[in-house]
Amino acid sequence: MRDFSADHRWLSLNTATVRKQGDLVHIVEACARHGIRAIDPWRDQVASIGLDRAVRAVRDAGLELSGYCRGGMFTSDAARRIEVRDDNRRAIDEAVALGAPCIVLVAGGLPQYSRPGSAASRDIVKARTQVTDAIAEMLVYASEAKMPLAIEPLHPAYAADRACVNTTMQALDICDQLDPQRTGALGVALDVYHIWWDPEVLPQIARAGQDRLLAFHVCDWMVPTKDILNDRGMMGDGVIDIRSLRSAVEAEGFSGYSEIEIFSNAWWDRPIDEVLQTCIERHRSAV
Amino acid sequence: MRDFSADHRWLSLNTATVRKQGDLVHIVEACARHGIRAIDPWRDQVASIGLDRAVRAVRDAGLELSGYCRGGMFTSDAARRIEVRDDNRRAIDEAVALGAPCIVLVAGGLPQYSRPGSAASRDIVKARTQVTDAIAEMLVYASEAKMPLAIEPLHPAYAADRACVNTTMQALDICDQLDPQRTGALGVALDVYHIWWDPEVLPQIARAGQDRLLAFHVCDWMVPTKDILNDRGMMGDGVIDIRSLRSAVEAEGFSGYSEIEIFSNAWWDRPIDEVLQTCIERHRSAV
Repeated sequence: MRDFSADHRWLSLNTATVRKQGDLVHIVEACARHGIRAIDPWRDQVASIGLDRAVRAVRDAGLELSGYCRGGMFTSDAARRIEVRDDNRRAIDEAVALGAPCIVLVAGGLPQYSRPGSAASRDIVKARTQVTDAIAEMLVYASEAKMPLAIEPLHPAYAADRACVNTTMQALDICDQLDPQRTGALGVALDVYHIWWDPEVLPQIARAGQDRLLAFHVCDWMVPTKDILNDRGMMGDGVIDIRSLRSAVEAEGFSGYSEIEIFSNAWWDRPIDEVLQTCIERHRSAV
Repeated sequence: MRDFSADHRWLSLNTATVRKQGDLVHIVEACARHGIRAIDPWRDQVASIGLDRAVRAVRDAGLELSGYCRGGMFTSDAARRIEVRDDNRRAIDEAVALGAPCIVLVAGGLPQYSRPGSAASRDIVKARTQVTDAIAEMLVYASEAKMPLAIEPLHPAYAADRACVNTTMQALDICDQLDPQRTGALGVALDVYHIWWDPEVLPQIARAGQDRLLAFHVCDWMVPTKDILNDRGMMGDGVIDIRSLRSAVEAEGFSGYSEIEIFSNAWWDRPIDEVLQTCIERHRSAV
């Protein structure tokens, strides 16, 4: 297991962590100030400054990407299928332009939440089938673009409205079905927030292996959780045994960035330099 | 699958559903008014009127019980182990006195939340081991009292503070380990709120079979969920495909009550007769 205590060279910042503090240019500048070497930007943050400007900002700052957030939201009614496909193809094009190593996929939950306006459904089994079919379709375009897809299982609390892929096992089942040869085109993005509770998580990380472990995200689970989406904790402030999970992915050969992704009303209220300084400290002491 | 549309003979009321509207005597009287035949009372509600009075109230109203809530909270530090054991033995004695068919077990999460004052831990693996050991110990006393234990897997959103048993598979693994002969002494209580998201839920219900299916609880999952504990929905108001889950348990031979358990700030604010009338309507139309 790598020693993170002496520096933060393996820290990447998911830019949603400071999305309320400024635009992507502002965030990139702050990362440069703090010696942060990598980011994972969100599509809306890229769109709001324009793709070309985002590409230049990242390049000029000498930043790497640890991923691109996000593709997915695959579940919809029939009327929106083409829209969903094309939206995800644009995500791939953007990821290529930005030099991302992978796109993080959030599957989508029931269609009425994944793609608003879609006919309402309670059929999560059908939603899951639709996700697998849509990833299969996206994989063709992504493989031509040489852009790996990283399926991110989300915590079961988001099964209805964000992602019906809720366990590492489920994500890996999709990988094995669509990419049995482990070509590197399909894998998982594991966020400790979503997987820490899972009794199967350690054997599933071993099952994933280096080929499938495309990204590793950290934050913490707060008790109580005051907001089901936006009360994620800074590493060390909650109950997740982060180090045991990082140890497990590194035991499989994962050697990428430890990406900090915190959706938090509390941290969004603080100055960006304070947030990044705290991220760096906790990366060294709690990750 | 039983037809619930014509009457509510298979409706049981978990008394937490109306816990803010009055004491257990008040709730029992309301059930009698509405032709509800069964309840699942909570220990604190029994304690607040006294066990003897609770026993008489239930008997005089001709009510059955569909369970007794709840035993468990097994995780603690060493100093509290005897207290935990004795607390659960008292729960068994109360359940026997009340004529309950089983005790619902909520495992407990990390020890500092399960038994406040316990030394803080982030070790959920150890917590799970402690739960299995404690159920093994409780099972001896429960078997002598002929009181079945029903392990209730809770939604992973409660893994830290309420229960580290979070899937039906996990609960059944404990059952198989401690009661391989399927004596009827140990099984599961399945609440649609906790299990609906689980990709493994249908095969695990089949694995449970009639022997292990000791209780079936219903409510609904709201989108958005405004409070992680107390924003559960009335059946039909949320996204759970309740009927497919009831169909699955009944296909295994479950023929007991469909118990309504709703923790909801919104429903606690309404008059008890309105809540019970709505429960009855939704039991017929949405369960």
